[in-house]
Amino acid sequence: MNETKKKVSILLDKKINETVRILADFVQYPSLAGYEKEAQEFIAKEMKLASLDVDLWEPTIEDTYINPTFLTTVDIFSGSPNVVGTFKGTGGGKSMILNGHVDVVPVNDSDWDKSPWSGAYEDGRIYGRGASDMKGGLVSHLMAIKAIAESGIKLKGDVYLQSVIGEETGGIGTLSAISRGYCADGAIISEPTDLVICPVSMGAMWFRIFVKGRAAHAGTSEFGVNAISKMCLVIGALNEFNDFRSKNTRHPLYKNILNPFNINVGAVRGGSFPTSVPDEIYIEGRMAISPDEEVEEARTALENAVMEAATNDEWLVTMPPQVEWYGFCLSPGGISLEHPLVNTVKSNCLSLGLSETVISGTPWGTDAGALIKYANTPTIVFGPGPGSTAHQANEYIDVQKVIEASKVIACTLLDWCDYEKL
Amino acid sequence: MNETKKKVSILLDKKINETVRILADFVQYPSLAGYEKEAQEFIAKEMKLASLDVDLWEPTIEDTYINPTFLTTVDIFSGSPNVVGTFKGTGGGKSMILNGHVDVVPVNDSDWDKSPWSGAYEDGRIYGRGASDMKGGLVSHLMAIKAIAESGIKLKGDVYLQSVIGEETGGIGTLSAISRGYCADGAIISEPTDLVICPVSMGAMWFRIFVKGRAAHAGTSEFGVNAISKMCLVIGALNEFNDFRSKNTRHPLYKNILNPFNINVGAVRGGSFPTSVPDEIYIEGRMAISPDEEVEEARTALENAVMEAATNDEWLVTMPPQVEWYGFCLSPGGISLEHPLVNTVKSNCLSLGLSETVISGTPWGTDAGALIKYANTPTIVFGPGPGSTAHQANEYIDVQKVIEASKVIACTLLDWCDYEKL
Repeated sequence: MNETKKKVSILLDKKINETVRILADFVQYPSLAGYEKEAQEFIAKEMKLASLDVDLWEPTIEDTYINPTFLTTVDIFSGSPNVVGTFKGTGGGKSMILNGHVDVVPVNDSDWDKSPWSGAYEDGRIYGRGASDMKGGLVSHLMAIKAIAESGIKLKGDVYLQSVIGEETGGIGTLSAISRGYCADGAIISEPTDLVICPVSMGAMWFRIFVKGRAAHAGTSEFGVNAISKMCLVIGALNEFNDFRSKNTRHPLYKNILNPFNINVGAVRGGSFPTSVPDEIYIEGRMAISPDEEVEEARTALENAVMEAATNDEWLVTMPPQVEWYGFCLSPGGISLEHPLVNTVKSNCLSLGLSETVISGTPWGTDAGALIKYANTPTIVFGPGPGSTAHQANEYIDVQKVIEASKVIACTLLDWCDYEKL
Repeated sequence: MNETKKKVSILLDKKINETVRILADFVQYPSLAGYEKEAQEFIAKEMKLASLDVDLWEPTIEDTYINPTFLTTVDIFSGSPNVVGTFKGTGGGKSMILNGHVDVVPVNDSDWDKSPWSGAYEDGRIYGRGASDMKGGLVSHLMAIKAIAESGIKLKGDVYLQSVIGEETGGIGTLSAISRGYCADGAIISEPTDLVICPVSMGAMWFRIFVKGRAAHAGTSEFGVNAISKMCLVIGALNEFNDFRSKNTRHPLYKNILNPFNINVGAVRGGSFPTSVPDEIYIEGRMAISPDEEVEEARTALENAVMEAATNDEWLVTMPPQVEWYGFCLSPGGISLEHPLVNTVKSNCLSLGLSETVISGTPWGTDAGALIKYANTPTIVFGPGPGSTAHQANEYIDVQKVIEASKVIACTLLDWCDYEKL
């Protein structure tokens, strides 16, 4: 490790209190979907303090048109601005996007030991919704840039620090940044990978399946068709299709996961009265797809599996199940394991003493697919948060991991963007 | 038909306007469960005008203890009085209970062409919730007694006109009347049988089945157990059990019905989020049982069928489904086809020219089981309403049928209770 990297790393160690202060404050803004504004104004202010040029704007639904498979449940994003801070280089170096989402998933207050918005710092951890997923990652990016700037180092390539909305609901924020013109020679998304380097991201998308029956009084059930029983046939077909995929849809970076690209039936609602034959039911679920699959082909495969089950049933063949894709669809994507971005991050992890540098695929969808596909920007996912606490009660992140991630990012920027040697 | 019967019948024909007035007024009281008081005060007033001795009281949950299989969701019945009007005989004759329930099932206003509480009289029909099920039946009873009284006929046996609450929610009203001491040599319940004589009633009861899984993020579904898929196994077992019953549980008075004592899964709720492996699900359903079955044995048979399915599944065997009986349980019951009560009603139907006198079992549960079992009172179900409009929007009853039923009831009372010949 050269002297410049050492200097930046030492500075980052010294910045532990500042890291805690910024992250704790950031977590205290309850930036649930639709309520990101105050958190974004906070991070924009911190970017300005670090001398970044700040671009803050509200996405529009038109920004998503670059991705024809995008789905949304909301059409207006007032109160949900995106923020990009540009750390301008002197020229001649490669550019980098550092991307993280500011939106957090809902909380069930009663499951938490203290307020989900406490940002409490205890035993080296910051607690709160979003601490791991992924304000901790965003702060690791910010601190990396601050440490470089405060060390008086001038990067040659530009760095774009992106705090985006809407990742948890399908990726509007990153698509909007792409539509606004942001692209780079590389990108790192600091989702909670436990410092595992992920050159590929799976895709994930939600579906609903509706089945109709025929209503009747239970006393004359022979005049009815029970929609619940018919849905059991569809669920059976989905389970068979899932088994088929677990054997046939594989990817080398997911070889340790039993069934990475699975189909999960997550919710069911049907019928309303014990004494009536139910005529309506729907299920909601998630289909995960391989980095090598396309969204459209995966959708068609699931639809075909459902329709095949229908053709074997007298009723369903005349009243076929309706498959709807809704609310959430993150494209899969990936880059080669040999890509220079992977190697740069990997070598910096090694020289910073992160003992086992693991390469894997993300166990969930991310914005990487969009950056790769629609911004033509090679992207990896690498962040400090523990994935196990994401979306859970008592979510936390180890501050020491945030600082380690900052060091890796800072050293990677020095390599990737290059800098003016004094 | 003797002169006395003829006289009463002719009087009932003349009473058409009075019948319409009383029934139309009665229907206008929205006597939903918990809101029966005004309707009961109205019918009590009409009973007093007919010179009946009126007993009005509020049931208590203790009144139901005579039936150990009774289930309720409400423990307090203030605002829901029972009414019994006694038409005292001169002595020496057989007594009769004329029973009907005043409570009506909920309405969905928007499905109705006019207000469900209009009591509108059009084209010979009275429209409104409860017109058929079963205020029309109650009024047919009242008019029969009025016609006998106004004809100056003195019955020897006592007649008890019962307007009870709570039939639609499991039969608290009739159980309370029994606990208060009301019993007789016979009883007729005027549920909407389309003037079909029903010496037997099926039983009906509601169940819930809970299945637990194990929650997990969909991305690591191998750590979870999908409760929805497990419930499909339980539903499959219920369907098999239902098929078995349709072949093996038969009754001669239900021979024309494909599967009278069926199991209907009416509703399902499970899981909450597409990206989570669901850990909870429940179904709600109704089990109908034969007049020859006992509630407890039928419950056990269903529970056994569910548990048998569980023993064939690795997960369910350790985390067995929970079966709960809730909210509604009407005991089955019946009397012999050769019972004098059946013959008396039948012969009066014939002599009044009701061309096809059909004998059948009720296609739903009624209070007959309770009267037979707990009041030791032989009971049939026979009433003027069309069953097809019960519980439906635009429920109605033909006033002419109400008058025909009144005639049958009046003639039956003359035979059954006997009367002082002048």
